[in-house]
Amino acid sequence: MDLLEKCRAYAWADEVRDAGLYPYYPAFQGAVEGGQAVLDGAEVCMLGSSNYRALSSNLQVVGAAQDAIALYGTSTTGSRLLNGNLDLHEELEADLANYLGFEAALLFSTGYTTNLGVVSCLAGRGDQVYLDEKAHASLIDGARLSAAAGAAVLQFRHNDPDDLARQLATAPTRSALVATEGVFSVEGDLAPVPELVAVCEEYGATLLVDDAHGVGAIGRGRGVIHHFGMGGRVPLMTLSFSTSLASQGGAVLADARTIDYLRHTSRPQIFSSGLSPADTAAAHASLREIRRRADRASDAVAAAEHLRAALDAIGFDVAGSDSPVVPVRFSDQVAVLTAQRVLVDHGIHTSALLPPACQGYQLRIACTAAHTPEVLDAVIGVFAALREDLLSNPRRVA
Amino acid sequence: MDLLEKCRAYAWADEVRDAGLYPYYPAFQGAVEGGQAVLDGAEVCMLGSSNYRALSSNLQVVGAAQDAIALYGTSTTGSRLLNGNLDLHEELEADLANYLGFEAALLFSTGYTTNLGVVSCLAGRGDQVYLDEKAHASLIDGARLSAAAGAAVLQFRHNDPDDLARQLATAPTRSALVATEGVFSVEGDLAPVPELVAVCEEYGATLLVDDAHGVGAIGRGRGVIHHFGMGGRVPLMTLSFSTSLASQGGAVLADARTIDYLRHTSRPQIFSSGLSPADTAAAHASLREIRRRADRASDAVAAAEHLRAALDAIGFDVAGSDSPVVPVRFSDQVAVLTAQRVLVDHGIHTSALLPPACQGYQLRIACTAAHTPEVLDAVIGVFAALREDLLSNPRRVA
Repeated sequence: MDLLEKCRAYAWADEVRDAGLYPYYPAFQGAVEGGQAVLDGAEVCMLGSSNYRALSSNLQVVGAAQDAIALYGTSTTGSRLLNGNLDLHEELEADLANYLGFEAALLFSTGYTTNLGVVSCLAGRGDQVYLDEKAHASLIDGARLSAAAGAAVLQFRHNDPDDLARQLATAPTRSALVATEGVFSVEGDLAPVPELVAVCEEYGATLLVDDAHGVGAIGRGRGVIHHFGMGGRVPLMTLSFSTSLASQGGAVLADARTIDYLRHTSRPQIFSSGLSPADTAAAHASLREIRRRADRASDAVAAAEHLRAALDAIGFDVAGSDSPVVPVRFSDQVAVLTAQRVLVDHGIHTSALLPPACQGYQLRIACTAAHTPEVLDAVIGVFAALREDLLSNPRRVA
Repeated sequence: MDLLEKCRAYAWADEVRDAGLYPYYPAFQGAVEGGQAVLDGAEVCMLGSSNYRALSSNLQVVGAAQDAIALYGTSTTGSRLLNGNLDLHEELEADLANYLGFEAALLFSTGYTTNLGVVSCLAGRGDQVYLDEKAHASLIDGARLSAAAGAAVLQFRHNDPDDLARQLATAPTRSALVATEGVFSVEGDLAPVPELVAVCEEYGATLLVDDAHGVGAIGRGRGVIHHFGMGGRVPLMTLSFSTSLASQGGAVLADARTIDYLRHTSRPQIFSSGLSPADTAAAHASLREIRRRADRASDAVAAAEHLRAALDAIGFDVAGSDSPVVPVRFSDQVAVLTAQRVLVDHGIHTSALLPPACQGYQLRIACTAAHTPEVLDAVIGVFAALREDLLSNPRRVA
């Protein structure tokens, strides 16, 4: 058996394709205003994106990205450490730190490498990492690299500060990193930040909140830490730019000494090229829009609450709260894939999540500021009309 | 001691700053044509970038990226698996596979995550990974994740197929991945691809060539595999878009079954947002330029050979060959940092590499197609005039 035998033996995707239920890699042909996208030559209602503030096609954001390309070109063509650092990067870092209430910030080229680079760089031999059991893959993979360097990696029960406290109380050292999501991207719920802060402060652990899905949409735009009034109490925060900031990349926020350490020692930072001029400018323009329109921060959450209540009333198994994410749970793989397909056939794109992306089977519905009450009522009408198809008639396509 | 004590204790950067020799994170204020960049309000000759084809400010590339933003917005706002896949991505994958001579391709959002995602996904329990001892950090970090999943990770001596053969001959299984760079980004030399292919074929190992620094600049643009006439003989190839393709991101090329497996199981792929529309379009437009102007592929290598010979004649310790990278070696940290600073003071930006980016101390000089003989002769004149300063007078700035 050679190395690639596992690839030749991989059958899952073909089986789902043969059943006519394959939901992955839909090829969108463009974005339009109002939460719509183009798929197979027709507009569909995009209810599967993390474009919470609907800024990806905002004219200010689009113009800023195009202007950056004209002035800086299309690439940094090198690591920021050496030759790929732009004044654009440093300006965005300064504004992020100011807005989010930290001393300093450091950009990474993706959200995934932000968490990977922070966790793996800060936790190594002699340290412990405590992960919420539903933490994002990027936190888990960072912790795996920490484990390879000698750290102990443990899990605590989802959103359970008491379980964390029990584990920290018997920990061999206090050099501990506790990592969680602020808004859980799959579960659609919020971390109990005040309780986690209290536990970490009691035991001298360092709390990292990945607020990829909170910044822009929660806490008048400043995310879950400010939503809970915990500014200044959380030492490490990360975010992704591919959600409300309508770009690509990510950032970590911390005290200035920690950021200086990460700038020089975090491997995904040193060994990746700097974020492209267009992506940097788009994130910065989105940040300006988010600051300017704090009054619109809660639009996506309000839309989600409306949809959540309606789907619950119709009889769906809906989870999450206080976030733009509306998880709808199904019993098995065929049921969730059938539901996803039925909705696409009626012009609504949602995301079907299976293990390992999700512990269970769910449609991930995400609302944005572009989903007006009129759009949502039309969506709710489709769900109501299709209730039996969506819930009760898994297809058995040959 | 808490987790962040290591950050508060980190002193290296401050010491180098205090000595007036800090070379990192220079903040460039824009790109101009002709291999120049703007630093501290003045043009400098950029001899530290991987913009080998000088396409980052090419009008076709700039225009394509701007147009993509207009049509698709600034962000994919989600994983390609679920909602962030664009026809732009699939078109670029098809053209990369066609041009580079593979069945299929898969994009990633950075070059680092390309190697991380391919190695960690393909090699796990029961497999072995053999790394060239000077392989890029992204291959090493991928192998660390493989090791965490149960793979055995070993090194072979740099560009030494005989050492690899000795190790494979006594290996416990044949499910082995052999990973190397095509053009070594730090060493500036080429992997002996035909000899590595022969060894891997003899022992049933799977060869991965990371040609981030070869595509565009070697083999009439098609990279080291084609430079050595080894098309069809290397099962796995990766590249970065932040070099000749003047963008951000990367791709893996392989047979269609392997690509389908990676599309569904590689964690940095599944758990990152899709490459931004601007970055995708820039890479694609650069690829078109590279195909259209195969006659210009060797410009950067020719410039480097000219510079290499001249610096050697002046008395510098120059390494590498047949690549756009010209490593100039120094005895210690102060010597290389002083040289980098003296050159910047005379309008030439190069990169100072220290451990762990480099085993030793070197200036990394990289030539591009924009470095005309006139530009290079001016650079050589500066090196000649400053020879004593560069080689013999390390500063001891208070």
